[in-house]
Amino acid sequence: MRNIALRIQYDGTDFVGSQWQANGRSVQGALEEAWEQLTRQRQRFTLSGRTDAGVHALGQVANVRTETGHDLRTIQRGMNAHLPDDVAVVEVWEAPDTFHARHSATRREYRYLLQPGPCELPVLRRLVVHVEYDLDGAAINQALQVLLGSHDFAAFAAGSPDGSTVRTCCMACCQPVELFGHALLAVDLAANGFLHHMVRNIVGTMLLVGSGRLESSQVAAILASRDRRRAGRTAPAHGLYLMKVVY
Amino acid sequence: MRNIALRIQYDGTDFVGSQWQANGRSVQGALEEAWEQLTRQRQRFTLSGRTDAGVHALGQVANVRTETGHDLRTIQRGMNAHLPDDVAVVEVWEAPDTFHARHSATRREYRYLLQPGPCELPVLRRLVVHVEYDLDGAAINQALQVLLGSHDFAAFAAGSPDGSTVRTCCMACCQPVELFGHALLAVDLAANGFLHHMVRNIVGTMLLVGSGRLESSQVAAILASRDRRRAGRTAPAHGLYLMKVVY
Repeated sequence: MRNIALRIQYDGTDFVGSQWQANGRSVQGALEEAWEQLTRQRQRFTLSGRTDAGVHALGQVANVRTETGHDLRTIQRGMNAHLPDDVAVVEVWEAPDTFHARHSATRREYRYLLQPGPCELPVLRRLVVHVEYDLDGAAINQALQVLLGSHDFAAFAAGSPDGSTVRTCCMACCQPVELFGHALLAVDLAANGFLHHMVRNIVGTMLLVGSGRLESSQVAAILASRDRRRAGRTAPAHGLYLMKVVY
Repeated sequence: MRNIALRIQYDGTDFVGSQWQANGRSVQGALEEAWEQLTRQRQRFTLSGRTDAGVHALGQVANVRTETGHDLRTIQRGMNAHLPDDVAVVEVWEAPDTFHARHSATRREYRYLLQPGPCELPVLRRLVVHVEYDLDGAAINQALQVLLGSHDFAAFAAGSPDGSTVRTCCMACCQPVELFGHALLAVDLAANGFLHHMVRNIVGTMLLVGSGRLESSQVAAILASRDRRRAGRTAPAHGLYLMKVVY
């Protein structure tokens, strides 16, 4: 039995999310359908983690256990021939039998793209989140530093999570980036794992900091409170990218 | 009577082109409808030049003659409130009475984005043109140099153009650019004016050069031939951007 790993990119705009759902098209469903067309076998795909409706991925990872005889190149080309144009397999490799896309992951990296300015830019409207006000990137960067290390992130989690809400954050920064000649801000976060809506709730809080409605120094108290109501609103999905999963 | 100039950005994906057409939604039509909703007056918008279905613009320019009393800020905000989300007014200014978005233009700049690689990237699929083979950017850059200066560009024009096919090209280069972590090639062209399909036919020819199917040195002969059949195929619309119009 082979264990095939795949690195996946997708535009989340028209997906109900990464995981199979009864009510619409999912990334997992698209992968399993393409796999069935390629191999004539229905197999379950495991993804590194769930991304919500509208969230994009440049480096999602999946694995599938299979007895197919197709070589790696044929798998990549065949999958891409059968997949819809909003999802693609960018790399395929043979993984050890013990490899599990979700359980084996040690680090996940996300990026959130913000476009401050007077008007939303049409060519970027599905790829970045527009805010009408200016943002102080340095203040956001400073506020993010308090997240580094191991903390209980319950203040930034959606709903009532099962199990521990402690995660270890190993990257948290805000930097200017340029896209199509426009000055954007990127919020980059990496951790051993993320709670549901955690990145978007952190970004929503950073929008308060960046617009001067919250002091950088207050973020530590919000984190320590473990109280979701004290953090900012959940930022929209379409600015968020799963960039990379490390094993 | 005021003469208002507007700098426009649009995602060309869902437009039949920039100019009004009976068979679908045009950028001009969207602008005129938004203007009518804002001012209660129907006015004709003049654009700097035509872009085809699927072609994007970061710096299209339009002008409209009007007696509206709205200030510039109200015009920009009001237009953006009424425009669909694939077109936006990024700047508005009072132009002299003699200003004409098309006739007054002295230089137009276009960029074409190419993504060489084994698979099309979902998040960029509407914004760049994917080619499955590697491209030699240096060879393309060298081949483009022959276009600089005043030439008869009939070899790169669609159909049988009315009037002169002589244009003066003042920028022609190919350079690597990065978008979402992916290495792309940008072909940049500027001229006093462009014939119909001229940029896309030049890029189609450069794809032959970049993939080794045509020598850089042969481009001069193709240009001199004034024979459309000797140049490459028309490259797809969705990699092309009208970047800037200079007056």
